Amino acid sequence: MKNQPALRRGPKPKPGTRSNLVQVGLRMVHEEGYAATGIQSIVEGAGVPKGSFYNHFTSKEAFGAEVIDAYFDRNESKLRAFLCNADVAPLARLEAYFDDRIEAFRAVGFTKGCLLGNFSAEAADHSALLREHLFEHFGAWSHFFENCIVEAQEQGAISNQFPAALLGRFLLNSWEGALLHMRVEKSDFPLIEFKKVVFGKLLV
Amino acid sequence: MKNQPALRRGPKPKPGTRSNLVQVGLRMVHEEGYAATGIQSIVEGAGVPKGSFYNHFTSKEAFGAEVIDAYFDRNESKLRAFLCNADVAPLARLEAYFDDRIEAFRAVGFTKGCLLGNFSAEAADHSALLREHLFEHFGAWSHFFENCIVEAQEQGAISNQFPAALLGRFLLNSWEGALLHMRVEKSDFPLIEFKKVVFGKLLV
Repeated sequence: MKNQPALRRGPKPKPGTRSNLVQVGLRMVHEEGYAATGIQSIVEGAGVPKGSFYNHFTSKEAFGAEVIDAYFDRNESKLRAFLCNADVAPLARLEAYFDDRIEAFRAVGFTKGCLLGNFSAEAADHSALLREHLFEHFGAWSHFFENCIVEAQEQGAISNQFPAALLGRFLLNSWEGALLHMRVEKSDFPLIEFKKVVFGKLLV
Repeated sequence: MKNQPALRRGPKPKPGTRSNLVQVGLRMVHEEGYAATGIQSIVEGAGVPKGSFYNHFTSKEAFGAEVIDAYFDRNESKLRAFLCNADVAPLARLEAYFDDRIEAFRAVGFTKGCLLGNFSAEAADHSALLREHLFEHFGAWSHFFENCIVEAQEQGAISNQFPAALLGRFLLNSWEGALLHMRVEKSDFPLIEFKKVVFGKLLV
């Protein structure tokens, strides 16, 4: 317990409450944005007293970092399911992953976008802690792309002109930008165009 | 005056105050984000009483739309200066434009990003008005890229595989995504990689 702040008082934090706060907060921050989501509305949404929040998190920033981690946990299961399936050719895996994501955004009316992208726009300039978490997860995410691209290069399915790591990062950044535009257009048009260029020109 | 709300009272709005509020608001929203910037801090920053704000703008949303327009006005002068110079080859114009932008982000420590991208992440889901303004300016911006790409295609400098309009939009979206990543990494690395792929693979 030596890392607990000395002034903390009150009942022992319940693990269920902590996870509930993170999941409720994740949903609200993803829908409304980080700055627009107050701690008061998170505790109300989770049905716990405000004091509970500070039993579990030292600040809104520390909470935000856990929300980012929880979001990427989900994302990572999806990435693993689509991109690590050795029975499917590497470019077909990548394409199936993006098709699945496009379908998911269609189901929510092209709202919300990527929580990592949203935090990058809203909070990356103001918090070294949030930036660290974003950096780590963007790195892990583009690494999944990179591994598929390495395989595709080894099989001669795409050229070796650029290192797979660079292409993986470019792919992720371009996808994040296409998601911003999707939210403005409220259509899948930018995502469909993304796929056309990526699979018709970039990864050939 | 028939479009003025019936309940508006007080002194006649001064045009200088309006423009001052927009410029101060633009700076603050670009640095802090749209949700995080309160009307109170904008009027304090502009050195005018709070009532002035509502003499000029019916809501924070209406103000946000003018901030977006003011940002794109500046952006458009830059686009015109770099991309409409017929003395320079079209791809060289595009490259010079991105080099200028990279230099500008370097000068501010890779902060702030693109205000249109930030509004897309923060507000596009919540305001049809802001979305319309973003839609219009993204369209105008990618049209500048498209015109250069048309010329490059006509000169045979790049292939006709994809329509110039599609490539222009892809270019803009990828740039917006690279800017998000720049803010997380606090380096020009994502922008340099963007240029490598765009000029080494996409526009060839």
